[in-house]
Amino acid sequence: MTSIRKSPGDPSSASGCGLPVVPGFRAGGIHCGIKKDQKKDLVLLTSDPPARVAGLFTRNLFKAAPVLISQARVRSGRCKAVLINSGNANACTGEAGHQDAVAMSRWAAKALGIEEESILVASTGVVGERLPLARIRRALPALLRSLHPEGLVEASEAIRTTDRFAKSLCRQSVIGGKEVTLFGMAKGAGMICPNLATLLAFFLTDLNAPVAALRRLLKTGVEGSFNRIDVDGDASTNDTVLLLANGMAGNRSARPGTHEFEAFADLLFPFMDELASMIVQDGEGATKVVEIRIRAARSKADAKTLAYKLANSPLVKTSFYGEDINWGRLMVALGCAGPLLQPDKMDIFYDGVQVVRRGISAGKRQETLAKKVLRKDRFTLTIDLQVGKGNHSVVTSDLTHAYVTLNASYRT
Amino acid sequence: MTSIRKSPGDPSSASGCGLPVVPGFRAGGIHCGIKKDQKKDLVLLTSDPPARVAGLFTRNLFKAAPVLISQARVRSGRCKAVLINSGNANACTGEAGHQDAVAMSRWAAKALGIEEESILVASTGVVGERLPLARIRRALPALLRSLHPEGLVEASEAIRTTDRFAKSLCRQSVIGGKEVTLFGMAKGAGMICPNLATLLAFFLTDLNAPVAALRRLLKTGVEGSFNRIDVDGDASTNDTVLLLANGMAGNRSARPGTHEFEAFADLLFPFMDELASMIVQDGEGATKVVEIRIRAARSKADAKTLAYKLANSPLVKTSFYGEDINWGRLMVALGCAGPLLQPDKMDIFYDGVQVVRRGISAGKRQETLAKKVLRKDRFTLTIDLQVGKGNHSVVTSDLTHAYVTLNASYRT
Repeated sequence: MTSIRKSPGDPSSASGCGLPVVPGFRAGGIHCGIKKDQKKDLVLLTSDPPARVAGLFTRNLFKAAPVLISQARVRSGRCKAVLINSGNANACTGEAGHQDAVAMSRWAAKALGIEEESILVASTGVVGERLPLARIRRALPALLRSLHPEGLVEASEAIRTTDRFAKSLCRQSVIGGKEVTLFGMAKGAGMICPNLATLLAFFLTDLNAPVAALRRLLKTGVEGSFNRIDVDGDASTNDTVLLLANGMAGNRSARPGTHEFEAFADLLFPFMDELASMIVQDGEGATKVVEIRIRAARSKADAKTLAYKLANSPLVKTSFYGEDINWGRLMVALGCAGPLLQPDKMDIFYDGVQVVRRGISAGKRQETLAKKVLRKDRFTLTIDLQVGKGNHSVVTSDLTHAYVTLNASYRT
Repeated sequence: MTSIRKSPGDPSSASGCGLPVVPGFRAGGIHCGIKKDQKKDLVLLTSDPPARVAGLFTRNLFKAAPVLISQARVRSGRCKAVLINSGNANACTGEAGHQDAVAMSRWAAKALGIEEESILVASTGVVGERLPLARIRRALPALLRSLHPEGLVEASEAIRTTDRFAKSLCRQSVIGGKEVTLFGMAKGAGMICPNLATLLAFFLTDLNAPVAALRRLLKTGVEGSFNRIDVDGDASTNDTVLLLANGMAGNRSARPGTHEFEAFADLLFPFMDELASMIVQDGEGATKVVEIRIRAARSKADAKTLAYKLANSPLVKTSFYGEDINWGRLMVALGCAGPLLQPDKMDIFYDGVQVVRRGISAGKRQETLAKKVLRKDRFTLTIDLQVGKGNHSVVTSDLTHAYVTLNASYRT
C-alpha cells in the first residue's frame, strides 16, 4: 500500500508521484463570484463511467436545499457528477433557494450532457442568503474547461470556507489483485464540537463495489471517524459525506462478506479517521487536538454523554488553551452531565500522568508532570469512572482568542 | 417602598442613607490568606435573634464539603451564623476536605458561643485544593471583631472570586404595618450559561415568617431568577442560596396565604431577578446581556431546551459579541437541538426588529435595523416558532476575548 499524503496547504508536495489521480474521475474548480478576492468557490467532480454512490447527510431539521436534493437523488445509487459551491450554504432560503439549487444542477447536467438526476449538489458557507445564480450560470463553461484528472487537489482547495488549509488524502492498495485508488477531501473547521460548521467530505475510488457495500462502508466509516469528532445531533444545515466508486479498478465486486470488501474497509476506515483528525487540527482558531476518553462508565451511552459534555464545555476548552491542569472543571462538568458517577472512584489522566486518584488530587508533583503534557499540540485526556463497562472517546480542539476573533467577525 | 440601590463596585453610593442595615444581622469580612494580594476571603454573617432559614443547593453530583454540611443543617430551619470563604471551593477534596469544613464551622461556632449545628458554611473558588485551615483558625478572632451591623456591603465584596464588582441590593417595604428590610448579596461571574462558576447568594431579612414560608418563597423566587440565568442541571459543585429571616420586624407571621406572605413575595421576587441580572452583567468577560425568548414551542420543555441551546452555543454567543446578525447560526443551533420545529413557520426578532420571516430572511433593510439593536449592551432575541404554546426565556451573556483570557489563565 503506497501512501500519497500531502502537507497541509501544500498540494504540490504530493510525494513525488504527481498530483493524485483516481481513474475515471475528473475535477475542476474556479472562482465564479460567490467568495470575494477571486478565491475559488465552484467545484465540479465527474466520473466516467458513472459511479455508484452512497451518501450521509445532516440530521439538522433545517436541511439546506442542496442536501434535500442530493438526499433524494443519492437513493438511486448512481452518480455521474457532483457540483459544489463554497461561500454560500443555500440554507434557510426557502422555496426560492430550493429552486436555485435545482437550477444550478440542471444547468450543470445540461452542460455535461447527463441526466439531471445523476448530478448531486453540495453547498457550504453563509446561511440565509440567496446564491448569485447568474454568476454560477455564466461560470459553467469555464468550470467544465477546468475539469481534468489531476484536478482533485485543486478541488479540495476550492471547497474551503474558514478552513486554514485544504484537507485531502490519497492512498492506493492492491485489492483482489487489482490496484485500487482512494482519494478523499474534506472541509470542516468550525469548533467541530459543537459542530456548527459544515462538514463536507467526498471519497472517490475506482473500486468495483455494489451500492449496498458502499452504504455499509460509509456508515461504519463515518461512525468511527467524522461522528467521533462531532456531537450527536449537533450538525450544520449542510453536512454531506459521499462515497463514489466507479469500478475502473476491475476488481471482483466488493460485496459485503468478500475479501475485497474487507480489504477496502481496511483501507477506508483509517483513511477517514486521518481526514477527520485533520479537520480537528484545523478547528477554527485551534491550537490543540485533544482526545477525550471516557472509560468504565455505566454504559456506552453514558460514556458518550460525558465525553461530549467535556468536549463542549467552554471552561474545559479554555483550560486546554491555557495549558492549565484545572481538573476541577472536569469534575464540575461531569458532575452535572446527567449520568451517575461516584466521585470517590474517579481517576483522571493527561496522557499517562494521573492527576486525580479516587476523586481527589494525586498531588502537586503529578500536576507538574501533567503540565508538560498540556504543553503538547496533541494529548489524551482519560477519565476512568470505574462504575461500569461503557467506553467512548471523542476528539476535540481548544477554545482560543482566535476562535472568538474568527466567529465574532465571520460575516463582517 | 424605598430602594437603596448601589452602583456596581461603589458601595459608598448607598443613596445617602448610609450603609444598609438589617435589624439583628451583623457581618464582617477579612483577609485570612486564601486569596493573594491581601484581598478579603473570609466572611461571617450572624443573626441575633436566631434566624429561620431556607436553602437551595447545587444538583451537581460532586457536591463540595460545605454544601453537604449546610444542606444537612438547613433542614432544622434554624441558623445563627453563616461562615463563607472565597478563593477555595473545598470541592473534590474527599474526606479530608469534609473534615476541614466541619473543623472551620466548629471553631467559628465555638468562638461565637453557639451550637455547631446552627452555623452554615459556604465556599467558592478553586476546586480540588485543600483549605489553609491553620490560617482560617488564626483569623477567627479578627473575623469576629470585624462583625458589625453595617458590614453587609463589605461582606458582599469579600465573597467575590472572578466577579468584577460586588453585587448587593437593599430594599425596605411596609408589610402588615411594619417596616421590613431585605438585603441580598450574590457572587457569580463565570459565563453563567453554562454556569460552571459558583453561584452564592444570601438574602437576609428581619421579616417574621415560618420556615415553610421561607422555603416556598426561596424556591419560587430562585425558579424565576437564578434558575433562569442558569442551565438546568449545569451547576457548580458549590452553588448555595440561603434566605434568612430573624423576625425582628415584628410583623404578623408571614404564613403562606397571608397578606404578609404575598407582600414579601412582591418584594423578594423582583429583587432576586435584579440581583440575578447583575450576575449576568458581570459574566466573565461579558460585554452584553441578552434575553433569549422562545415563543410558541410545542411545549414549555421544548422552549427551555431551545433557549438553553442558544444560550450555550459558542457560535451564537460570539455573534452577539461581534454584533453580527448571523441568524443562520440561530437556525442551525435550533435545528439540531432536538425539539420539532417547522422551519417555514419561524420568525426571529432582535428587540422589535424582525430579521427572519417564516424561515427566511426578512430582507437586508431589516438586518440593517437589527444591527443597531445588536450594538446595545442589552437586548432581547425572540424566536417565535408558531408550533404550539410553550414559552421560556433565559438571560445570557456574550462570549468574548476577555472570557478566553480569564479562563485560560484562571489558576496560573
